[in-house]
Amino acid sequence: MINFALLGAGRIGSIHGANVARHPEANLVGLYDPFQDNADRLSAELGCKQMTLDEIFSSDEIDAILICSATDTHADFIERAVANNKHVFCEKPIDLSLQRVRDCCVSVAATDCKALVAFNRRFDPNFQLLQQQCTQGVIGDIEMVNIISKDPSPPPIEYIKTSGGLFRDMTIHDFDVARFMLGEEIVNVSAHASCLVDSDIAKAGDVDTAMITLKTASGKLAQITNSRRASYGYDQRVEVHGSKGMLETRNINESSVTAHTATGVNGPKPLHFFLERYEAAYQSEIDTFIRSLKGETVSFPTMNDGLQALLIADAALLSYQQGRTVKVSEIT
Amino acid sequence: MINFALLGAGRIGSIHGANVARHPEANLVGLYDPFQDNADRLSAELGCKQMTLDEIFSSDEIDAILICSATDTHADFIERAVANNKHVFCEKPIDLSLQRVRDCCVSVAATDCKALVAFNRRFDPNFQLLQQQCTQGVIGDIEMVNIISKDPSPPPIEYIKTSGGLFRDMTIHDFDVARFMLGEEIVNVSAHASCLVDSDIAKAGDVDTAMITLKTASGKLAQITNSRRASYGYDQRVEVHGSKGMLETRNINESSVTAHTATGVNGPKPLHFFLERYEAAYQSEIDTFIRSLKGETVSFPTMNDGLQALLIADAALLSYQQGRTVKVSEIT
Amino acid sequence: MINFALLGAGRIGSIHGANVARHPEANLVGLYDPFQDNADRLSAELGCKQMTLDEIFSSDEIDAILICSATDTHADFIERAVANNKHVFCEKPIDLSLQRVRDCCVSVAATDCKALVAFNRRFDPNFQLLQQQCTQGVIGDIEMVNIISKDPSPPPIEYIKTSGGLFRDMTIHDFDVARFMLGEEIVNVSAHASCLVDSDIAKAGDVDTAMITLKTASGKLAQITNSRRASYGYDQRVEVHGSKGMLETRNINESSVTAHTATGVNGPKPLHFFLERYEAAYQSEIDTFIRSLKGETVSFPTMNDGLQALLIADAALLSYQQGRTVKVSEIT
Amino acid sequence: MINFALLGAGRIGSIHGANVARHPEANLVGLYDPFQDNADRLSAELGCKQMTLDEIFSSDEIDAILICSATDTHADFIERAVANNKHVFCEKPIDLSLQRVRDCCVSVAATDCKALVAFNRRFDPNFQLLQQQCTQGVIGDIEMVNIISKDPSPPPIEYIKTSGGLFRDMTIHDFDVARFMLGEEIVNVSAHASCLVDSDIAKAGDVDTAMITLKTASGKLAQITNSRRASYGYDQRVEVHGSKGMLETRNINESSVTAHTATGVNGPKPLHFFLERYEAAYQSEIDTFIRSLKGETVSFPTMNDGLQALLIADAALLSYQQGRTVKVSEIT
Repeated sequence: MINFALLGAGRIGSIHGANVARHPEANLVGLYDPFQDNADRLSAELGCKQMTLDEIFSSDEIDAILICSATDTHADFIERAVANNKHVFCEKPIDLSLQRVRDCCVSVAATDCKALVAFNRRFDPNFQLLQQQCTQGVIGDIEMVNIISKDPSPPPIEYIKTSGGLFRDMTIHDFDVARFMLGEEIVNVSAHASCLVDSDIAKAGDVDTAMITLKTASGKLAQITNSRRASYGYDQRVEVHGSKGMLETRNINESSVTAHTATGVNGPKPLHFFLERYEAAYQSEIDTFIRSLKGETVSFPTMNDGLQALLIADAALLSYQQGRTVKVSEIT
Repeated sequence: MINFALLGAGRIGSIHGANVARHPEANLVGLYDPFQDNADRLSAELGCKQMTLDEIFSSDEIDAILICSATDTHADFIERAVANNKHVFCEKPIDLSLQRVRDCCVSVAATDCKALVAFNRRFDPNFQLLQQQCTQGVIGDIEMVNIISKDPSPPPIEYIKTSGGLFRDMTIHDFDVARFMLGEEIVNVSAHASCLVDSDIAKAGDVDTAMITLKTASGKLAQITNSRRASYGYDQRVEVHGSKGMLETRNINESSVTAHTATGVNGPKPLHFFLERYEAAYQSEIDTFIRSLKGETVSFPTMNDGLQALLIADAALLSYQQGRTVKVSEIT
Repeated sequence: MINFALLGAGRIGSIHGANVARHPEANLVGLYDPFQDNADRLSAELGCKQMTLDEIFSSDEIDAILICSATDTHADFIERAVANNKHVFCEKPIDLSLQRVRDCCVSVAATDCKALVAFNRRFDPNFQLLQQQCTQGVIGDIEMVNIISKDPSPPPIEYIKTSGGLFRDMTIHDFDVARFMLGEEIVNVSAHASCLVDSDIAKAGDVDTAMITLKTASGKLAQITNSRRASYGYDQRVEVHGSKGMLETRNINESSVTAHTATGVNGPKPLHFFLERYEAAYQSEIDTFIRSLKGETVSFPTMNDGLQALLIADAALLSYQQGRTVKVSEIT
Repeated sequence: MINFALLGAGRIGSIHGANVARHPEANLVGLYDPFQDNADRLSAELGCKQMTLDEIFSSDEIDAILICSATDTHADFIERAVANNKHVFCEKPIDLSLQRVRDCCVSVAATDCKALVAFNRRFDPNFQLLQQQCTQGVIGDIEMVNIISKDPSPPPIEYIKTSGGLFRDMTIHDFDVARFMLGEEIVNVSAHASCLVDSDIAKAGDVDTAMITLKTASGKLAQITNSRRASYGYDQRVEVHGSKGMLETRNINESSVTAHTATGVNGPKPLHFFLERYEAAYQSEIDTFIRSLKGETVSFPTMNDGLQALLIADAALLSYQQGRTVKVSEIT
């Protein structure tokens, strides 16, 4: 059995905590959250104890730390975890500062600890199957990737003000999916964006609608379509075009019931948001991490994947600001 | 909390037992299976004790019994349960003897015990949504129901010899779905069948391919298509035709990944069999039963639903044997 | 060039006449219709002359006759055509009297004339492709056929009074499709029907909603679902189930535009009725007949196909009236 | 009746010529092609006479000219046609030189002649319906457009050498579709491209794989995905995202037959190339032009639409060459 402690008992911490708690080969030993209400609620719900940070990091019982706390605590917690010989499962982003992320990568690399950066979409069964079929050559050489990624509605404006902006907060997932599908590093980034959904987002200095193009050294291309709004639900689709064909995964719908009436053929909407859409992905993500800790050879997104996605996000922001294609190597 | 005991630790008992065990408002107190290996395996897996039948039926701790044992024990266990003031969740069929089923109905009705007959498809989220839309009038008055129900491959020949035959073992689910969707009792049954899949099934006196037509008093019609074989997976589709339109639910597929290549557009197959296809239905079935025991007003298939489906199955067999339409009222 | 004359300038005559007129290897020489308005309109539209029946049948110029006149004239015109050594393209049904149909079959067989009975659905590109894939073994041995066939709305009650009833007027197409797909003669028929759409149809002695089951000598089964009403458009679907899989063809829709909004995913309706749905089939039907007359080896529905479909229709009516399965061999 | 003459009897000239010839309100009087074989073949096939250029432009009988000749003759023929008071239906592009296109626009505007630039996709029933639904507000304000446009295989290398390059030859259609759907002029263009399909194309100085982003003054965005290769057929899809939803049109397939077997669910491929895919569009294009000449108020792509698409294409090329976002207003 692998023993976990959880840092952060908010929305995403509750999901990861519950998935650990019900996993047959793991225990959730304890949790910490600076908001006592969160800590009380989730520890009761999952039947684990509350612990201080010092207790968690110094405990001989704890094998691995789930970092689901505020973004600005991630880097410190990662470093403290690996310094205490504990494996790390960390929510993205590692940090909004590139230098801080690089330092963390070094800190982790200096130990034998494993660190998974939680790009949940890599664990979505459909995205995963699509990527496997790419590597199996179903469509020959990969040439282009198209990603549609729209949220049902914008987050609170307070969140937007501290999130690092659309590219670093939302598109970062798509940058990781593009790298996952392309199988090659991004070298050029060209981002185009507008504020069409909510003018308060513009006032906060951000955009809510974006189209980004990525290019690899060998000339493969990827396009990302982003919006903070999709009235019909969470729009999450991927297409990969290759020399011998195209693979696509469409949305997962709320049901399979279709009504044929005088007004048309009316089918179900996509699942509403990420909790429903990626429920299986969250389970698989925890399971993969546990299997890795038990010695299985499995693949998961690493600290370097977290770094690369942030580099691309920073390049996208610069591209948007300067109206030109930015090389990822320009970002320092 | 509702305390359950489980009778029968085979395939379906394992599913229901696990769903009870992980339900936040229920406990699985103990289980019994005459095959000691089954009992050992499942009690360890679910962390519950092994009990004798006498212990189970006499225990003050047990509120409800899950009957997942061999078909020929169902009726006895139902009667013993309600005689001991315990609620009953019973796998179908109640019994292969109509008289025995009728006796059981009387026994249960004489108590305040609740009895759910486990027609799992009524709890499938898609079938349920379709039926709700029917009752909401989305397609006006119901006129016709089409049910496609094919298993991926035949069960072992030993099972077929004791199952009561295709109509009582397999089609019985479809008879219940037809009643669920039509919202009216069946009065006429016309069954047509062949043995096209495996000649050993014919030697065992059964058929493996069937088309059955049902009719209600008001003239509504239903058609059922059955086969013991579907090379592409578990085929489970329903269409309901009404005065203002048609509702359909298609199969649930293994993924949403589609490959477009020179050989065509190749999509995923349906989920392979009932454990995968009706996973959510099994969870909802247990949950609905628990909510009922806690006093919520919920709807579920009853002893009478079990009786009606068996009457239709017997009428279908007679219709097939005599080459004529049989009135359900002829079956005694 | 093949020279045609057209008998009957109504709705279906206009379609066949126009398809002949624009065919590069055929001429429409003349036409006859007892309703002068029809004759005037269509001869002007298609640029052909009006001829009397005597002129048509005695003309050396005419190679083939398109019989699109009233049903009760078909048999006479067929016999007169072949007596004058002219090939025949005849709308279904040949006649409502079995004896008359049998006589016609003999008359045609006694000559070298070719006679196509216009079961248009055999020429639908999708039905045809499906049937070809069956014969190519894509799904192994054929076991079951499911046909959904619903009209958007009932014909005028006057038409129903003289049409010969649902089975002989509407289902006859589906009987032919079933034979086409099964590749084997029907031996047993079981029909179930109601009047749910319009009570005037019941008063006229007919039904408007039906489910029919067919069986072949080797035990293959077919089910047909019929209604005179489909609020969402012309519902024309076929599934064929075989030992190695299932082939289906779904409806052809008005467009490929789908709207994803807060109210759901709203796609196009099926094409509204047979003129749109089978437009390509009508063209292919004429083209196939012309290619046959030019000596190509092509397959098309014959006088015997017309006879078999009528036998099944008569068996269906008897089955419905007597509440039993009827052998086609009982029909005389 | 509108009398047409056709210039150019090649592939596209044959299509437009045939559509005029069979139109009930038009005549194809004559045609000209410098390749005598082409002229002989098509004049025989369509039953029209051969004429010299002088005869065509000086004829009082001719109302309108179909310009389907080599690209470098378009501008001269347009000017000569309107100078002789004849309406113009001209294949795209007007010319590869911006200045020449601008001159032509002036020449046409100085007359009362109508000039349609043949962006056939605007007449595709699905694209047209999608655009109508946009203007009807089905999805609120338009925010983003996604266009996938892939040819089944590259054209001959000789064609590529003179076509003006991918952006001016192939993407120009997508630029026009983007303008059609966005309902607003493009101001910024950012193009990214590679040569992944055939290295001979790179040697010829062109690219074969491209992703282009367009932006309007109000911040609407469009993305185009292009490839000269799609092993599965002609990939032609459009999505429009708005404030209240998303409209999409998927590919038109070769059939509606789907095979469900042990290897998966195998559906038909998209129609293979533009002749099949846009057959209805070509008919509608000619019909719309004829209706316009008869005085109906209809909408079609004009000389200015031809000019705007070329401006965007030139901006795309510059953007690709310089690695920056180019303003359309920079192009002179």
